[in-house]
Amino acid sequence: MNQPRASEPSVPISVVDVIRKKRDGRGLSRAEIEYLVHAYTIGEIPDYQVSAWLMAVVLRGMTRSETSALTDAMLRSGEVLDLSDLPARKVDKHSTGGVGDKTSLVLAPLVAAGGLFVPMISGRGLGHTGGTLDKLESIPGFNVNLSVPQFRGVLNACGCAMIGQTSQIAPADRKLYALRDVTGTVESPYLICASIMSKKLAEGIDALVLDVKTGSGAFMKQEQDAVFLAELMVETGERMGKTVVALITNMDQPLGLKVGNSIEVEEAIEVLRGDGPEDVRELCLELAGWMLHLGGAADTVPHGKTIAEQLIVSGKALERFRQMVALHGGDVRVIDNPDLLSHSKHQSDVVSAKDGHITAINCEAIGTACVALGGGREKKEDSVDPAVGIVLHRRLGDPVTAGEPLCTIHHNSETRATRATKLLLESYQISDSPAVAKKPLIHRVIRGTGEK
Amino acid sequence: MNQPRASEPSVPISVVDVIRKKRDGRGLSRAEIEYLVHAYTIGEIPDYQVSAWLMAVVLRGMTRSETSALTDAMLRSGEVLDLSDLPARKVDKHSTGGVGDKTSLVLAPLVAAGGLFVPMISGRGLGHTGGTLDKLESIPGFNVNLSVPQFRGVLNACGCAMIGQTSQIAPADRKLYALRDVTGTVESPYLICASIMSKKLAEGIDALVLDVKTGSGAFMKQEQDAVFLAELMVETGERMGKTVVALITNMDQPLGLKVGNSIEVEEAIEVLRGDGPEDVRELCLELAGWMLHLGGAADTVPHGKTIAEQLIVSGKALERFRQMVALHGGDVRVIDNPDLLSHSKHQSDVVSAKDGHITAINCEAIGTACVALGGGREKKEDSVDPAVGIVLHRRLGDPVTAGEPLCTIHHNSETRATRATKLLLESYQISDSPAVAKKPLIHRVIRGTGEK
Repeated sequence: MNQPRASEPSVPISVVDVIRKKRDGRGLSRAEIEYLVHAYTIGEIPDYQVSAWLMAVVLRGMTRSETSALTDAMLRSGEVLDLSDLPARKVDKHSTGGVGDKTSLVLAPLVAAGGLFVPMISGRGLGHTGGTLDKLESIPGFNVNLSVPQFRGVLNACGCAMIGQTSQIAPADRKLYALRDVTGTVESPYLICASIMSKKLAEGIDALVLDVKTGSGAFMKQEQDAVFLAELMVETGERMGKTVVALITNMDQPLGLKVGNSIEVEEAIEVLRGDGPEDVRELCLELAGWMLHLGGAADTVPHGKTIAEQLIVSGKALERFRQMVALHGGDVRVIDNPDLLSHSKHQSDVVSAKDGHITAINCEAIGTACVALGGGREKKEDSVDPAVGIVLHRRLGDPVTAGEPLCTIHHNSETRATRATKLLLESYQISDSPAVAKKPLIHRVIRGTGEK
Repeated sequence: MNQPRASEPSVPISVVDVIRKKRDGRGLSRAEIEYLVHAYTIGEIPDYQVSAWLMAVVLRGMTRSETSALTDAMLRSGEVLDLSDLPARKVDKHSTGGVGDKTSLVLAPLVAAGGLFVPMISGRGLGHTGGTLDKLESIPGFNVNLSVPQFRGVLNACGCAMIGQTSQIAPADRKLYALRDVTGTVESPYLICASIMSKKLAEGIDALVLDVKTGSGAFMKQEQDAVFLAELMVETGERMGKTVVALITNMDQPLGLKVGNSIEVEEAIEVLRGDGPEDVRELCLELAGWMLHLGGAADTVPHGKTIAEQLIVSGKALERFRQMVALHGGDVRVIDNPDLLSHSKHQSDVVSAKDGHITAINCEAIGTACVALGGGREKKEDSVDPAVGIVLHRRLGDPVTAGEPLCTIHHNSETRATRATKLLLESYQISDSPAVAKKPLIHRVIRGTGEK
């Protein structure tokens, strides 16, 4: 159902006055923000005025109420899904982007198996980070481009569905994001918050768990920046009547051992089977615990985690994944036989040049190495090679001997492999001292005032 | 002669990187600024990227070397007049805009009579301020739209010429100014400096005297802002090899007694005859003194003022004005018979409601009242009525009795007169206390390091 669009303001609003106000650090009214977003979306305000305004927002910031007004206006620029007919609460998870983060693939079927609905609208790889849609498409036949009625159908049938953004959802964000990308106005927590929250809240969900990454592989390298964005998103969600919690999680090294598309699907299936690397498993259980709790399927987060563990042990989560893959047109045989996923022609080890311990990893460089292999896009029009990727053998704090492999590159091109190898060798810092202050996987939880 | 355009940079410059650098407060190289201006002028960079960059400049500022690089790039975006064949130095004066400021009409012929060349390219009224071109056009037949060869011809013949900006001069400024006007990025001293100086230095002058106004009728209400801009322009001019001096002058009330077009021409002629209001005369002599000194026609500024006074007394300055008007196609009979200038159909007095002294004047409101009468433009496409205006009878510090006229409105429309009367009544502050700390006409002089 379309919510009514904001009515035209009774007093004409001058775009130049709105730009000037923000330039001078004064607050904008809800009507001014609504007008700007609405008029820009329908093409009444040119790009050059909005880009000047965006730069003023980047440099002057926004109040909480301005941020909510912007999110709300962007949300209402398009269709807002009405899933109120579904017989349980709708919850979702959103990550700000990391390397090796395949948790969405585990969480959607896991939480659906717990009795909730997970209407997940995901993205493609961005910069050095992977994208859920690219990973899903490495499953032969898996269609992420469902229409809204088809999406609703899959959701009804198995409790979860995973698609890409449609042009009906938050068109203002699509237009604003394209403009921000070419005008140096991406890096603003207020604009990032409005972009994420407008799309997520358009899914018609009741609750949202945010996974805000921090560390060398995150967009926010500094924890304080991650916390600032998390608090902004939590408060914005609450102001819009939703239950939102944010987990600040570590991205100083890739999540799990596999970075790529096919191989990340493999690792997600391992976790759904009860195996897989400990950190992926731990983060999935923590996020699932929160989703089940916020969705009302568990009294507490620990209770939610217990439920999630049982759903994995019982095979119900994997079974739900199988159903979802089938409903999306994907080849379910890959679940029991991962060899059916596409594999790279070549593999080569990246070996350590010296003895010592891994004291730091430039995690962004590992993501970039995966993009260099063809596992992500350097230009928007590039296609993604599902088969390539990186399998890690050594992680933070691990000892290594000269000549031992740090990781293995899965590749289809020697040239690309050479570039990736260089990046990977540079990304590991190996030192004589074994002392590494390893940060916990989950740094902290940001709850709204309604959650405390 | 066209100066060679900056060559293409050897390393490709990314516009987004340039925007980001300025956004983050980092300095831009000359090559980056040249590229931006050049590529924007020829249409290779879209408005939306430049407006984001302009907003970043407004909020982050620029270093002196960035400001010079910007000015230089804008200057060289078009034709730079080569007047080196003229047998004396070329000097000009530029004002940042005021109310009742008719000094250009006096200065061009006065300084030309002193043996220098004054190649003056002027503007139209902007906002509440009057424009030299609009004033000149109130002389029947006066053509401000000369081609460059015609301009050169008039200059050769009588030592001064006064035209409007041509599309060949600093086209980058024309394009940037239009964009700044609609993106809230006008108010930046760095951008204002580059806009003014690029146009003025394209005139092929050796020296420039700047009249930077401050007070209630100026764009810069605060003296500190006027001084900041003045210092920036003086240093930028010096870095570009020109001799530049700025006078910070008072604009707490209109300059002289007449505000309009025809009536300001009348007042300029009065000054050229040796009459006219004391403040107009004083400012003209001071500015002429500086112009004659910087142009090498006087050893000192006081010497220049003495020369200027003599040129007025001897009638040589007025004679030079007569020649210039004739060469521009204007009706020289208006000089001896100002009745031939167009006059308004109606006149009405604005009378004081109470006894007291004039303790403050909102000078901008007087300028706005003149625009309301039709003496300036409220929209770009408006035509200007040369006949209308305001003649002041009371100035700052003057006593006034209830029922006495504060000023007389010259108008051609009762509706417009009503609006102007309201503005004028509100613009005078009349108080019992006669104590007014009247500021001097010339607050201070800003000289470059080469002038000290």
